[in-house]
Amino acid sequence: MRNCTGNKPHTILRVSVKHQYTRTFAIMDAIRQRIATRALVPGDRLPSIRQFARTLQASPSTVVQAYDRLAAEGVISPRQGSGFYVTGRALPPLSLADTTTPAARAVDPFWVSRQSLDSDPTVLKPGCGWLPTEWMPHEALRKALRAVARRDDTILSEYGGTRGALRLRRLLTAQFATEGLDISPDQVLLTGSGTQAVDLICRLLVRRGDTVLVDDPCYFNFQALLRAHEIRIVGVPYTTTGPDTEAFERIVLKEKPRLYITNSVLHNPTGATLSPQTAFRLLSIVATSGMQVVEDDIFTDFETVPSARLAVMDGLEHVIRVGSFSKTLSASVRCGYIAAPKELIDGLIDLQVATSFGGPGPITTEVIADVLEGGSYRKHMHEIMRRLEKSRKTVAHKLKTLEIVPWIVPKGGFYLWCRLPDGQDSTKIALSSLTDKIIHAPGNAFSVSQSASSFMRFNVTQCENEKIFHSLEQILAGRPQTNSL
Amino acid sequence: MRNCTGNKPHTILRVSVKHQYTRTFAIMDAIRQRIATRALVPGDRLPSIRQFARTLQASPSTVVQAYDRLAAEGVISPRQGSGFYVTGRALPPLSLADTTTPAARAVDPFWVSRQSLDSDPTVLKPGCGWLPTEWMPHEALRKALRAVARRDDTILSEYGGTRGALRLRRLLTAQFATEGLDISPDQVLLTGSGTQAVDLICRLLVRRGDTVLVDDPCYFNFQALLRAHEIRIVGVPYTTTGPDTEAFERIVLKEKPRLYITNSVLHNPTGATLSPQTAFRLLSIVATSGMQVVEDDIFTDFETVPSARLAVMDGLEHVIRVGSFSKTLSASVRCGYIAAPKELIDGLIDLQVATSFGGPGPITTEVIADVLEGGSYRKHMHEIMRRLEKSRKTVAHKLKTLEIVPWIVPKGGFYLWCRLPDGQDSTKIALSSLTDKIIHAPGNAFSVSQSASSFMRFNVTQCENEKIFHSLEQILAGRPQTNSL
Repeated sequence: MRNCTGNKPHTILRVSVKHQYTRTFAIMDAIRQRIATRALVPGDRLPSIRQFARTLQASPSTVVQAYDRLAAEGVISPRQGSGFYVTGRALPPLSLADTTTPAARAVDPFWVSRQSLDSDPTVLKPGCGWLPTEWMPHEALRKALRAVARRDDTILSEYGGTRGALRLRRLLTAQFATEGLDISPDQVLLTGSGTQAVDLICRLLVRRGDTVLVDDPCYFNFQALLRAHEIRIVGVPYTTTGPDTEAFERIVLKEKPRLYITNSVLHNPTGATLSPQTAFRLLSIVATSGMQVVEDDIFTDFETVPSARLAVMDGLEHVIRVGSFSKTLSASVRCGYIAAPKELIDGLIDLQVATSFGGPGPITTEVIADVLEGGSYRKHMHEIMRRLEKSRKTVAHKLKTLEIVPWIVPKGGFYLWCRLPDGQDSTKIALSSLTDKIIHAPGNAFSVSQSASSFMRFNVTQCENEKIFHSLEQILAGRPQTNSL
Repeated sequence: MRNCTGNKPHTILRVSVKHQYTRTFAIMDAIRQRIATRALVPGDRLPSIRQFARTLQASPSTVVQAYDRLAAEGVISPRQGSGFYVTGRALPPLSLADTTTPAARAVDPFWVSRQSLDSDPTVLKPGCGWLPTEWMPHEALRKALRAVARRDDTILSEYGGTRGALRLRRLLTAQFATEGLDISPDQVLLTGSGTQAVDLICRLLVRRGDTVLVDDPCYFNFQALLRAHEIRIVGVPYTTTGPDTEAFERIVLKEKPRLYITNSVLHNPTGATLSPQTAFRLLSIVATSGMQVVEDDIFTDFETVPSARLAVMDGLEHVIRVGSFSKTLSASVRCGYIAAPKELIDGLIDLQVATSFGGPGPITTEVIADVLEGGSYRKHMHEIMRRLEKSRKTVAHKLKTLEIVPWIVPKGGFYLWCRLPDGQDSTKIALSSLTDKIIHAPGNAFSVSQSASSFMRFNVTQCENEKIFHSLEQILAGRPQTNSL
């Protein structure tokens, strides 16, 4: 067994470092490097912490940290009383990136999510469904994390109750009250995400073979979710003021659906908002049909004055309201919610315990409640809405020069649902754009009837880079296609 | 409209406060109080921030914070340029507690979880499935939260990739490698929780009406989960070295199950550990049957020397390994994992996107990776194991004086699966104990065949309070029962 101290360990540290954190990683990288080049081989003992620290002119705690982390990775291993030894288990290099360039796969309801979530940072994502990182309230999030680090032990390590933190449920009911919906925090269940909220409702209320209505077009993940349930999906044609209520009534009578899932406010993908008249007609049909409505209110914070909401008008009798904080606060703190009649909440709790052992933990809900209660969130949202208004105009203008025209002018949010020039197919464009490392959201990813091939959803906040428009121009002009499928 | 400044606002602040945070809440409480007593009524304007701060001898920023938080709650509302006004929407008082005393409900697979998760802190929980709060590594968690507060914006607000953070997946594969299981981080998927890991696997592999095997007795939530899937559940008798392999073979031939779900290490509820011989026989049967095994390895960190594991022996061919960090690190940071053959991972990713829009966010996975990599986690687990050994002995001794006898002496963990004195029924005892605010885990909550009424699972770490043994003694001696059902 060689002792590697003979190998001039000070040559290990080539990187010039200042900060201890960086320094720790530099030491770790250097040791890994020496293992990779077999300058250190399995069974070799690393220098003692004290000795190594002296050689490197580093603090012993830095060396301790580096050794501990490498031990946690399994690269080296401590032996009682005799230091650390090389194990021979090398990790795959970190450059085995966590992200990939967009890969060709069929344009199905997963297309946009999988492409966007796993793309590397150089990929442009006009098709994705969230704000750019730099738009999010990071200072408030950092402050909240530091504050949570000072909270009670129970917050840091316990499961919390099965409904999720009362503090956050109270903030939600307070917000609902401003819209005219007065409910008790007992009628709110926190869930692992907004999507999981819809999933739990489907698990409780829908059986395989049942029929569920969605808008056509609708948020693509509703289709992905319902397919996972092996449910019949029927689309309701969508108009600029909400679903076509005549078609809705006809379909309800014919199909006897169990659920209708929709966004009322700033509908995804169209950006339209339900009118009070459509809301009233819709609820009248629902009331006599025995079905229920899931109103996904994920874009609620993008409105200054609340528009018509089914849950409010109906008072949560036939309508279940769901939402989350991913679009405006953070997608990294995973949390959604369900506001429902009391008699449903107990069943939903049991289901969430059975399938996830509860909803979001106390750390997550404290961070969210802290950000919501801190005064800066309101200012943050005002600023977001100001920027969005400007951004929608700019992008609509640029698209117009390519003869790509918004279906409506949305009164808020970040989506423009656009018609392409005659004869253009958005699926082909989306596939072709992958070559340029651009991810688009083609219309048919949103359409149950597959009738939206001439439409494309643009996220205006993700359209800052001119490359997106150059690429579109070329493709529309008939650039020879490299079909990536 | 009255202006409340006439009402001597300095009388609002009765509570003596020092810290700004506390002071903010004191101001908020005082304003709420005055609304409750109608000293302030809807439409009243609150004093200006500057004026109010002067009156209270508080800093203006404290008053701003109090107003902002009350505005977030909807209690007051800002009007452009003219201050804050009382809205008339009062919140339910915070004393509307988040927790409840244990309620009588049927002893079903939800009994233990619902009772334990929602009980107030004064309730004793020898039946629950986790360590007491004070056993958890809070300093490491606090340090990790502070560190995460300093990380890149992308960590704080983005979704992260669909597989979950590579950093944490690498740490997991490094740990698996120390047990002899060499897999790529691409074969690991991070999930919202350990339970959700099992749920996703069932969604991918099992169809309604299929048969799934579990141990009898087994972790009660496996039953709750499988019931949610409307799956046929068949129990395999459990021995002190794992499932009865002869019975297993007979059942497999007869029932053609799709899955078998088990814990190999420190089996819940018995505390037994699979022997290498049983593991080999089991895998031989599985290999020729076309079924798959889900090995829930949640207690892996409670072992110093790894015992036989199905996933390791099988090399992830027919076995899928799942686990989480709730038992040893924190139940508040929700995260589980699946290690599976590559061809299953893609389907699981799609399912998790469809039903939860991905797994744990980057904040959660960074906190966990930081704690695991920080040197203190190893020391923490050593200390836990030392305490557990002592605790198992003490509790076994105390139970013996009540003629409650452990089925086996487990080599680790915190469970003792105990036989009650002749003729005693654990369900009756559990119901009776609710009167004493004690939550027990009666045997039949774990038993598919309902054949464990004379057994009870004790969590030794939750048995510090002598009241538990006094209560048991009285009930066993035939205390007149107040049947709470």
